[in-house]
Amino acid sequence: MTLTVLFAASDANWQDYAAPLRAALADAGIDATLTREADPAGVDYIVYAPSSPVQDFAPFTRCKAVLSLWAGVERIVGNPTLTQPLCRMVDPALTEGMVEWVVGHALRHHLGMDRHIVNPGRVWDPTCPPLARERPVAMLGMGELGTACARALAALNFPVTGWSRTPKDVAGIPCLSGEAGLEQALCGAAIVVTLLPRTPETENTLDARRLALLPQGAVILNPGRGALIDDAALLAALDAGRVGHATLDVFRVEPLPQDHPFWTHPRVTVTPHIAADTRAPSASRVIVENIRRAEAGEPLLNRVDRQRGY
Amino acid sequence: MTLTVLFAASDANWQDYAAPLRAALADAGIDATLTREADPAGVDYIVYAPSSPVQDFAPFTRCKAVLSLWAGVERIVGNPTLTQPLCRMVDPALTEGMVEWVVGHALRHHLGMDRHIVNPGRVWDPTCPPLARERPVAMLGMGELGTACARALAALNFPVTGWSRTPKDVAGIPCLSGEAGLEQALCGAAIVVTLLPRTPETENTLDARRLALLPQGAVILNPGRGALIDDAALLAALDAGRVGHATLDVFRVEPLPQDHPFWTHPRVTVTPHIAADTRAPSASRVIVENIRRAEAGEPLLNRVDRQRGY
Repeated sequence: MTLTVLFAASDANWQDYAAPLRAALADAGIDATLTREADPAGVDYIVYAPSSPVQDFAPFTRCKAVLSLWAGVERIVGNPTLTQPLCRMVDPALTEGMVEWVVGHALRHHLGMDRHIVNPGRVWDPTCPPLARERPVAMLGMGELGTACARALAALNFPVTGWSRTPKDVAGIPCLSGEAGLEQALCGAAIVVTLLPRTPETENTLDARRLALLPQGAVILNPGRGALIDDAALLAALDAGRVGHATLDVFRVEPLPQDHPFWTHPRVTVTPHIAADTRAPSASRVIVENIRRAEAGEPLLNRVDRQRGY
Repeated sequence: MTLTVLFAASDANWQDYAAPLRAALADAGIDATLTREADPAGVDYIVYAPSSPVQDFAPFTRCKAVLSLWAGVERIVGNPTLTQPLCRMVDPALTEGMVEWVVGHALRHHLGMDRHIVNPGRVWDPTCPPLARERPVAMLGMGELGTACARALAALNFPVTGWSRTPKDVAGIPCLSGEAGLEQALCGAAIVVTLLPRTPETENTLDARRLALLPQGAVILNPGRGALIDDAALLAALDAGRVGHATLDVFRVEPLPQDHPFWTHPRVTVTPHIAADTRAPSASRVIVENIRRAEAGEPLLNRVDRQRGY
């Protein structure tokens, strides 16, 4: 029987995904119709992004899974009409891109590159930076992305401490959890990376109180979610020099409004939500693998725990 | 019998090294006097940097080895009075620092960071960079430093091709050699790293003809030696856009003269010879290990082949 897969996302997503999804379905030998319009009662799977007009999942009575194109599911997980299994996107290409952004900006700050990139005074100061082994990193969030970034930084000798809400055991990376663990991680961190999921508990993880725990001049990298940081508290900590620099890829409102103080603050670098982009070919293979699994009665990959929120 | 170790280097070097060298000698249980002045006929070992007034090695008739504080030995290897064994510095901290500089600047160019670091127009362009796996790197020079950098870049998925004068076999890194191999490496490289030793053969390795082989917009990173690149040819290739950017840590004259066009060229970043600094504590342990080996009749580490020049 031909499966019906509803593509519930924006026109732009459709441009990117129609061909790769059809190719991945064909490669997997799955007989399916990929469509943007279908009778809800006849839909087997929904490929979903928050840009979709679909907000009421109740009519999709036959739907076996909602497969998110996004890694972050905070805009759908609380939807009370959603009773179907929900899967996050864990795209290997997304992880790679995230590791590149995090390692690149960690090394940029570690090496003090900015003063060489912009050096109108032609200053030649051959003072060597310390070695990475002397620059502790706190990785807030030890999920798929945080763990991959922690491992890549540790491979370059950065002493990395992981932190997550619940205790984690990751080979080679000392991991802390809970409030006391968070305070301990922040106290010793020259570089803090925020890669927590967006949940009610993680909002403003870096607030004024916790920012005050950082060593003077610590650097913050946020490629996770804008809401993980209290913007006003961060600006105050930057003004005070407590935080030496913040490189931010995600914001509460995107694109970042032209009048936001982050744009002009001398200690802030804005990158335009490029740290981790889902790439259509690899993401399509992930989506199709979950359809294959559901049809074969195997457990779904990256299924969201509705209670935890991710 | 107490050994006499002559420290033949600058006052600044003496400030850095006197204590760490004495500590390393004591740790190794070697009975030695570390001195800046001695009767040449009574000297057992010379710790050497080109900043030293010692240029005639003939009077050091008992000297068992000249132990360079520098990785590059081009300023001593051709000295006709030097008949004693010469050892290069291979400092693990130097290798770490080099890997950090090379990986950091490779990721900086790969991610297009400069346009975010300096963005007065507040441009929000969420176009993702390609993945590292789509950005080929040519590593010219596969010695201690080049191999370590190649491995670190490959661990981040950059497709790295090594090149060296003589054929090399390095696990996981395809290696080319000879003139045809160099041309092949340059033709496919989005990023070229020059980490060759400075010898008469390597001068101007990147000359006008070879620069013309690069794909349009390729990036050059030179943390090796200034003389590896023909400055005028590089400036012409940058003006033509053939080379998209050059980040240079080493120069024919250092500090780079204030009127050198590299300082103001929009496609050049100058870093002040910081890619790899020898660190006194770890370098002192390397020096002392070679004294221990010589006294025990074991082969010296990192001994220079006078014919090859490194």
